[in-house]
Amino acid sequence: MHYLIHVSYDGTRYSGWQRQGNCANTITAKLEAVLSRLDDREVKVDGAGRTDAGVHAIDQTATFDLASSPDCGEVLAYANRYLPEDIAVIGVQTVPQRFHARLHSVGKIYRYEIRTSPVPDVFRRKYQWHLQKTPDAARMRKAAEQMTGTHDFASFCTARPGSRSTVRTLKRAEILQEGGTIQIEYEGNGFLYNMVRIMTGTLVEVGLGQREPEDIAGILSSRNRANAGITAPAQGLTLVRVLYDPIEASCGGKRA
Amino acid sequence: MHYLIHVSYDGTRYSGWQRQGNCANTITAKLEAVLSRLDDREVKVDGAGRTDAGVHAIDQTATFDLASSPDCGEVLAYANRYLPEDIAVIGVQTVPQRFHARLHSVGKIYRYEIRTSPVPDVFRRKYQWHLQKTPDAARMRKAAEQMTGTHDFASFCTARPGSRSTVRTLKRAEILQEGGTIQIEYEGNGFLYNMVRIMTGTLVEVGLGQREPEDIAGILSSRNRANAGITAPAQGLTLVRVLYDPIEASCGGKRA
Repeated sequence: MHYLIHVSYDGTRYSGWQRQGNCANTITAKLEAVLSRLDDREVKVDGAGRTDAGVHAIDQTATFDLASSPDCGEVLAYANRYLPEDIAVIGVQTVPQRFHARLHSVGKIYRYEIRTSPVPDVFRRKYQWHLQKTPDAARMRKAAEQMTGTHDFASFCTARPGSRSTVRTLKRAEILQEGGTIQIEYEGNGFLYNMVRIMTGTLVEVGLGQREPEDIAGILSSRNRANAGITAPAQGLTLVRVLYDPIEASCGGKRA
Repeated sequence: MHYLIHVSYDGTRYSGWQRQGNCANTITAKLEAVLSRLDDREVKVDGAGRTDAGVHAIDQTATFDLASSPDCGEVLAYANRYLPEDIAVIGVQTVPQRFHARLHSVGKIYRYEIRTSPVPDVFRRKYQWHLQKTPDAARMRKAAEQMTGTHDFASFCTARPGSRSTVRTLKRAEILQEGGTIQIEYEGNGFLYNMVRIMTGTLVEVGLGQREPEDIAGILSSRNRANAGITAPAQGLTLVRVLYDPIEASCGGKRA
């Protein structure tokens, strides 16, 4: 049976969703260990996308096969019993065999959270970038508007050997300022390596007056990473949701 | 100069707000170390009340003297620069010399958070009690109503040598059920040792059908700890706020 799972994790302790080669300290490795034990054979999971070391997820997705074909509720209960407490399976459904978490996804939503108050939030400290100054949200909004749309985002990614097109569509980049925090929510059809963190670093530099909102167009057209801003720290970044067209699912599975 | 500070902490790593004898691993010890360094002499802080090992606070208060009389903003910045990242000073004000954080408080608000979904919340896991079954919130509400008012709460506390009256007024005990969690908010003029955790344990037992809502009156009148429910785990408990009548403060200090 072929399954789609929804996974929530606090990425603080991990080397990311997945790494090249053998690395036991990834979310994927923890999931595969538990699912392999459940199925009594080696199970491989295909994630919707990789998240970097220290990046969190509210609802990441992955697909895999289980030869023993357990109920969705059984997979959920088993996984949550044996996974470490900073990883949780929040939903399980069975999907057609051809369904692939990454290939069938039509977009993703990421959120970046910045603490701007001089006072830290002790309960959110692992999920925020704590700035000592408050960026101007109106300036950030102007710059963010110029990032939305379909562009070549080569300036806003860390080059990876063998990577292909760097054209992506950023549907929205919304800036919400509230109670000592600024949250930036990004929705797009796909994100390049480090793209959200470099966009965030650049937006913060604009907010702090180190760059002008009007500079974004030039940075994009230069196709040169060196012209964009810093890479914001991993810990402020959370994958909120992976988007799909409606899926023909055969069992709903429990959701939180 | 005499100061009142507001302190936020994630209690996970600590032996509580304060302990008898010398213990370096308390919130008080961390605060005193930093304030003593700022004032270049030994500073003692008087808290509004103790929280147990593992209990958190959004806004705990304490009073102390600083001979060097720094600005409130200076105290706040200095404290947050040198405190561990799970303790934050969120406000500082100067108050009349006679003002005492505990003696002048007129009440406290505590919140207890219970996770009832089979799916853990990885981001709140350190601040929740994760139950495997969902208690009936309506039954809990009925029982909570019987707890409110002025009663002898001897059945709902762990006896401490030398403790005096066990009569307290519980102004409200509100139960809020939302998205896989139950939160209980308690407001009262004072709380006995372990009182919130024993009330919570008892309410959960009522919610799970192990006791009847009508049993509360009998438990109260028995004045016998053995008749009440279990002591709920510390990690689900958070001190939300210490209540005061309006204070004549001479400088506001920064708040988050």
